[in-house]
Amino acid sequence: MTLLDETRQRIVPPDAAVAAATQRLLDGKTKPRRSLGRLEEIACRIAAMRGRPLPPPPVGAIVVMAADHGVAAEGVSAYPQEVTRQMVLNFVRGGAAINVLARRAGARLVVVDMGVAGELEPAPGLLLRRIAAGTRSLASGPAMSRADAVRAIEAGVAIARDLARAGVTLLGTGEMGIANTTAASALAAALTGRPVAELTGRGTGVDDAALRRKVAVIERALIVNRPDAADPLGTLAQLGGFEIAGLAGLILGAAAERVPVVLDGVITAAAALVAVRLAPRAAGYLLAAHRSVEPAHAPLLAALELEPLVDLALRLGEGTGAALAFGLIEAAIALLHEMASFADAGVADSGA
Amino acid sequence: MTLLDETRQRIVPPDAAVAAATQRLLDGKTKPRRSLGRLEEIACRIAAMRGRPLPPPPVGAIVVMAADHGVAAEGVSAYPQEVTRQMVLNFVRGGAAINVLARRAGARLVVVDMGVAGELEPAPGLLLRRIAAGTRSLASGPAMSRADAVRAIEAGVAIARDLARAGVTLLGTGEMGIANTTAASALAAALTGRPVAELTGRGTGVDDAALRRKVAVIERALIVNRPDAADPLGTLAQLGGFEIAGLAGLILGAAAERVPVVLDGVITAAAALVAVRLAPRAAGYLLAAHRSVEPAHAPLLAALELEPLVDLALRLGEGTGAALAFGLIEAAIALLHEMASFADAGVADSGA
Repeated sequence: MTLLDETRQRIVPPDAAVAAATQRLLDGKTKPRRSLGRLEEIACRIAAMRGRPLPPPPVGAIVVMAADHGVAAEGVSAYPQEVTRQMVLNFVRGGAAINVLARRAGARLVVVDMGVAGELEPAPGLLLRRIAAGTRSLASGPAMSRADAVRAIEAGVAIARDLARAGVTLLGTGEMGIANTTAASALAAALTGRPVAELTGRGTGVDDAALRRKVAVIERALIVNRPDAADPLGTLAQLGGFEIAGLAGLILGAAAERVPVVLDGVITAAAALVAVRLAPRAAGYLLAAHRSVEPAHAPLLAALELEPLVDLALRLGEGTGAALAFGLIEAAIALLHEMASFADAGVADSGA
Repeated sequence: MTLLDETRQRIVPPDAAVAAATQRLLDGKTKPRRSLGRLEEIACRIAAMRGRPLPPPPVGAIVVMAADHGVAAEGVSAYPQEVTRQMVLNFVRGGAAINVLARRAGARLVVVDMGVAGELEPAPGLLLRRIAAGTRSLASGPAMSRADAVRAIEAGVAIARDLARAGVTLLGTGEMGIANTTAASALAAALTGRPVAELTGRGTGVDDAALRRKVAVIERALIVNRPDAADPLGTLAQLGGFEIAGLAGLILGAAAERVPVVLDGVITAAAALVAVRLAPRAAGYLLAAHRSVEPAHAPLLAALELEPLVDLALRLGEGTGAALAFGLIEAAIALLHEMASFADAGVADSGA
């Protein structure tokens, strides 16, 4: 059996009995029942994923996967393709937004070259897992072979497994790849069946002409490839990027290890929908950090049945929204550990 | 001139030229322009309030003001009045939700007795500023005298001033007071002119019968007191609580010291609307943390022209939402300090 198939089979649903036990703990704390709203829901969900009513404070890591996209040659991005590699170097040197936010969240940052076009030297914190020097253009045929899609997914599975074994208990997802909103919107259209024009946005900030070009490129990709939503692996190979495939694998690997995964923006949501179509039980391990301004994000979150925690009009990616959400998730767990109960504090409990 | 009048006159608007300089700094960072969305807006607003394009990392404090409300005797809360005092003791001992979240935010917690019904002993971190042992019922006449409203406001002004002089540069607001959503909804109705039924919610969790009673009590308060929205001080005295008056003063005092104030839920929003009606320029120093489930909260935030940062269905108060928002605000300032520029990082800038 392949690593991918074995991983899909290993995923068990979060434990509903554990969630109920956590809710009882929260109901004994000095506050009206459920008055901490979604923080209580998060605490219960994390507990159920981890299989422990009182999970220890999370040990966080953010995995940023980077790759290039052949479709960048079609003029669908405001930035040249070299920026993918330049930004990976910026991540390695610690100067990007995700470096600042991961440091603030106390989370380890892992950067993965899944297929950047230019050469990257080994560096601390950088994993070299490149499948190829970028994908082919999805507008002219499949972006990658089915075998390469499996290789990229399995690289992600292995990274999640290694991090879980190193003690990580909360994973954030991030990405970098010039033109990757084109791939994400194409995947969203293929997997949700919604119109391309509704799902396509300005990415890093293209003008009206480039936006029209981007819609046309995605429509062409769907005609050329004829993706079948019932075959998520084939759809991923036709339209995806190596970082999207790697993230789908990371999600599957994390779910198999019962590690919660915090999604970031539209690219990671597309990867998550691929993962959930490959293994529906993986959905139980997902949390949505924020609602991006990219138009495909809300339909993807709806398909994943996720509600984001913050609404900050972010459109950067890199895992920035996920890193911001770590603080809220860690707060939810801290409340579970540190709040007094009605009995401890001598506070009257109305039961309300 | 009274301290209140002097404070109102000292408030200057945030500096728009400073905000523009901060935006230029952000535009040079390695990310598409404005892609950090509301984090960029927050950084610019904080800079403009502080009068410095690159404000130092904030030094935070959360001020939780507590008081009792005569209207509690009308059966408008799920909890007995003693819970106000019990929760103040819980704050002092460190076991409440706000203790956990203030600790996580690295913020000092200041608890203020503005008029709790039971006796409170002096304790570290507790300021005794009580005006009286709770207000009178707003349903039978003014909750407090106009002179007591001024005393409570001025106590809040002085606390903000003292904290600012002690180096605090970011203030969060919190409150505790059984039945204080009744006072807040009454103030919201009087100051916005909207119907009471639309603005009244379940507070800590009352049942349908108590909710109907609460609406009737507020409607009676408006008939008995006939508040005049053009007289915010009189309206506050008729309908408010001592903690609401104290928070209005805290906001005015903070604005006079150019210290940003993070609002929490519906009670603090009602206090903010009183403050802004007393001194419109104070509005420039407000940030909204979260959108509470209490129905008066959204109309109050709309009247204040504020958009909340997180949407977590909180309904606890105490400053819990404000403490959660501190992490996002501090992240916005950290990005300004720590991100590399395009030039530093050798990343191509499209200008997008």
